[in-house]
Amino acid sequence: MTPTITAFESSPDRGKGQARDMRVRWALEETGQPCNVRLVSFREMKEPAHRALHPFGQIPTYEEGDLVLFESGAIVLHIATHHDGLLSKDANARARAIAWLFAALNTVEPPIVERESAGYVEGDKPWHEARRPILDDRVRHRLRELSSRLGDADWLDGAFSAGDLMMVMVLRRLNSSRLLNEFPNLLAYVARGEARPAFKRAFDAQLAVFVAASAGR
Amino acid sequence: MTPTITAFESSPDRGKGQARDMRVRWALEETGQPCNVRLVSFREMKEPAHRALHPFGQIPTYEEGDLVLFESGAIVLHIATHHDGLLSKDANARARAIAWLFAALNTVEPPIVERESAGYVEGDKPWHEARRPILDDRVRHRLRELSSRLGDADWLDGAFSAGDLMMVMVLRRLNSSRLLNEFPNLLAYVARGEARPAFKRAFDAQLAVFVAASAGR
Repeated sequence: MTPTITAFESSPDRGKGQARDMRVRWALEETGQPCNVRLVSFREMKEPAHRALHPFGQIPTYEEGDLVLFESGAIVLHIATHHDGLLSKDANARARAIAWLFAALNTVEPPIVERESAGYVEGDKPWHEARRPILDDRVRHRLRELSSRLGDADWLDGAFSAGDLMMVMVLRRLNSSRLLNEFPNLLAYVARGEARPAFKRAFDAQLAVFVAASAGR
Repeated sequence: MTPTITAFESSPDRGKGQARDMRVRWALEETGQPCNVRLVSFREMKEPAHRALHPFGQIPTYEEGDLVLFESGAIVLHIATHHDGLLSKDANARARAIAWLFAALNTVEPPIVERESAGYVEGDKPWHEARRPILDDRVRHRLRELSSRLGDADWLDGAFSAGDLMMVMVLRRLNSSRLLNEFPNLLAYVARGEARPAFKRAFDAQLAVFVAASAGR
């Protein structure tokens, strides 16, 4: 049964692939799975019908028969568990890849989101400029540790996995900053992820939504 | 093979069970699994030997034969996958419980950690007091959504699961604040989690480490 995912009707990043549906699109492409995409507006996301699928009123959601999932991490893990391509057959390698998936979401992403959202939430506050170096340093701290672990390897633990997919997506949130430039191996790691054919197909699909929406305005 | 986990040699919360080893201890107790605990000091956590186990220099880690894992979410999921007690046999219920595990870590915990760490990181800054209501409101926003989804149910999705275990642990971080009091059903939900015999055994075990460390000082 072809699953249905939700994505923004109007991409806030103008098609740069930063919205969380991109993580799910990429996982589906890596595993060769088709999907239907239902677009939702910001208003619809907060209404009861969508909240029944996603308690926090966000995208993406994933519907497959009777199953409804939310949280990009859970959806990517679900896809990776049921289809070949994102997790090793070896039980230990599989568990370690899942550890990297959690590390991307619970250790590396939070300070990146914090730095990003400070601009939206507190950009007009008198302290915003003074806080910037603090926010940058918190991100830098995690990047330094990640860079040190990655070293000159291609991926975080052997072959490309769901953990790399999520880590690349999390690090891509820094694309418009200069922080990633301080860690050339992480920059190259993100570029390796973006160069994968499955990434490109997923990226083009989310960009097409933005282009169509812009043309329709 | 009995796994070995790591925990703080000297608990920063004085045995209140807020450190992340408590999540793993609780999961092991729910599934009836024994474990060895190796205590590490703050200094040791940042040294190469520990960083080889945990790239971000934190606790807990989980060693079982050749397998080394980090990230409390990944460890809890690993335990829940390999032993009965934390995930349903039904595939869809299982996937939904895992979605709640991710929601606890990636949607609910980040604003709670942010509110908590502002005191440590920026407590001496002139803007700290003015930012408090902003930080509180971000937590409140997520609590409201979670409270609305939980309603008068005992657990988030049918029977108690790894998702509830993680959500209770994340909400417990607010124990010393008054925010949780605004949502009586969440307060009762946390109390239900803390009343489970497995929680109590895990709590007592981590408290015993603190008591022994204090006596030895």
